[in-house]
Amino acid sequence: MQIENILVTGKIYKKLEALISGRSLNKQFRYLSEEDVTSDDLNWADALVCVHPFPSFHFGNLKWIHSLNAGVDRFMSEVEWKDDVLFTRTISSFGERMGEFCLSYILQDLQMHEHFSEKQKEESWEPATPGQLKDQSIVIFGTGAIGQKIAEVFSTFGSKVSGVSLSGKSKDPFQQVVSIDNRDQLNNVLQNADWVISTLPNTAETENLFDKSIFSNFDDVGFMNTGRGATVDEGALLKAIDQNHVRKAILDVFREEPLPKDSPFWNHEKVIVTPHISAVTTAEDAVECFVDTLDNIENDRPLENQVDMVKGY
Amino acid sequence: MQIENILVTGKIYKKLEALISGRSLNKQFRYLSEEDVTSDDLNWADALVCVHPFPSFHFGNLKWIHSLNAGVDRFMSEVEWKDDVLFTRTISSFGERMGEFCLSYILQDLQMHEHFSEKQKEESWEPATPGQLKDQSIVIFGTGAIGQKIAEVFSTFGSKVSGVSLSGKSKDPFQQVVSIDNRDQLNNVLQNADWVISTLPNTAETENLFDKSIFSNFDDVGFMNTGRGATVDEGALLKAIDQNHVRKAILDVFREEPLPKDSPFWNHEKVIVTPHISAVTTAEDAVECFVDTLDNIENDRPLENQVDMVKGY
Repeated sequence: MQIENILVTGKIYKKLEALISGRSLNKQFRYLSEEDVTSDDLNWADALVCVHPFPSFHFGNLKWIHSLNAGVDRFMSEVEWKDDVLFTRTISSFGERMGEFCLSYILQDLQMHEHFSEKQKEESWEPATPGQLKDQSIVIFGTGAIGQKIAEVFSTFGSKVSGVSLSGKSKDPFQQVVSIDNRDQLNNVLQNADWVISTLPNTAETENLFDKSIFSNFDDVGFMNTGRGATVDEGALLKAIDQNHVRKAILDVFREEPLPKDSPFWNHEKVIVTPHISAVTTAEDAVECFVDTLDNIENDRPLENQVDMVKGY
Repeated sequence: MQIENILVTGKIYKKLEALISGRSLNKQFRYLSEEDVTSDDLNWADALVCVHPFPSFHFGNLKWIHSLNAGVDRFMSEVEWKDDVLFTRTISSFGERMGEFCLSYILQDLQMHEHFSEKQKEESWEPATPGQLKDQSIVIFGTGAIGQKIAEVFSTFGSKVSGVSLSGKSKDPFQQVVSIDNRDQLNNVLQNADWVISTLPNTAETENLFDKSIFSNFDDVGFMNTGRGATVDEGALLKAIDQNHVRKAILDVFREEPLPKDSPFWNHEKVIVTPHISAVTTAEDAVECFVDTLDNIENDRPLENQVDMVKGY
């Protein structure tokens, strides 16, 4: 496929312009804020680079849409897709970033940062023995590129890492992968977990997947959500914390973002809230991925980051 | 060398007795508190397993002394050694433990745990982009087994890792190793460091090594000490923090331990104090190492953990 006219929009369109201009791509570009995109722009463009659907969005003459995000759930739910339009998403270093995010909070816990910080405030010298990653059993929901990268990080340190996916198909570096639908096997894996990490996208199958019935099989588990907020029944999570199924929760994503002021998560002593930063795409990362994808498309190479419209990611 | 009579002492001698008894070692053991060890016990024993020199200590008929600690500086400074007595120390999983300790605090910093924790208290949703390990330049003082293990951990994540040693001899997985005595090269490495980690033992050569002159080459560096407190001129460190040579300090070891109540480190906002826990030896680890060492000695195998009386570790 050949691409000539590329429309770039989204909050950071000026930053993207500065970065893309430096690449000598020999294409026609229009850089516009979402409000300024007209129907004419969409008829002019072969390709659209954007974050989410925006008010004036229609397919026009588009042959390719590239999402600056990894998550494409708003496109999936708000747009009826045109079959002949290619859809790709940004993958960049999400796996590395999420791996470091997850590792940081599990180490914070094992190394007892909060405890020693309290002791320091009290000027109290009280040695205690940190836990080690080699003794942790970690269950990762989602065995795609991101889940695999997180699994790789923990495997390096000798943790026991299991995966949970729709298919249950074995994949490196997971020691085992179980299917979401095989509830007996899944419950068995969950009952032995120290940590459960979800990297799941929001699809029809994953919506509210983490509900009362799943949480009831957690036994004093650290729960981390770096996927999508809508995969978790937030009320069920709060109850699971009360009932010690969940020992602590580290939540980077929420059903509604920014997290509303009245959310009980903000000041819950067993919940850590981060503002959807576990896999920030920097403008540099996004441009890198866009340029690579464009190059792959024009040279008919396979695309690692093409969105599967049936799976939804 | 054959060993028959083994004297075990130190605070946890009862726990050691429970663990060693389970090993069917077919030796004669005496387990005693340090106060209860008599001159007769030392004349009876071929081997002594202990933490530090104790009041009644003398060499008696000892052929082998095994330290339950990794650091043997008190033996080096308080005891005039007898040349024909073998001296070994506990090595166990110090490298793994220290690697996780160091990683936890560097990730805490890169992932902005404190910042996001403050924002959570304010119920404020303010995304920011965490730093990544791949962009960190890390300098490790000490390129022995422990330094190498820490270097391996950070190398896995793509950090640039340099080593500093007495000899300056190249060693995997350090990208470069410079000699402490080559001040030009050393200063060059230090000026580009994001983090400096010391794993140095306390010897004549390392005492007060981290002084005004070394710190003056730090440029906004995170400094971590997991080696020995006496390697750092504490006054010089405090000044280096004031002058932004050191951005923050994570100190696990101190000249005087427990850290005295009047130490300015306790409530310094740029200092994290932990109570010498970065390489805790559990009783299980210590017994494992002791049993392995005994086996190696009796079978004339090379000893990885023999103390070099000249080097002092």
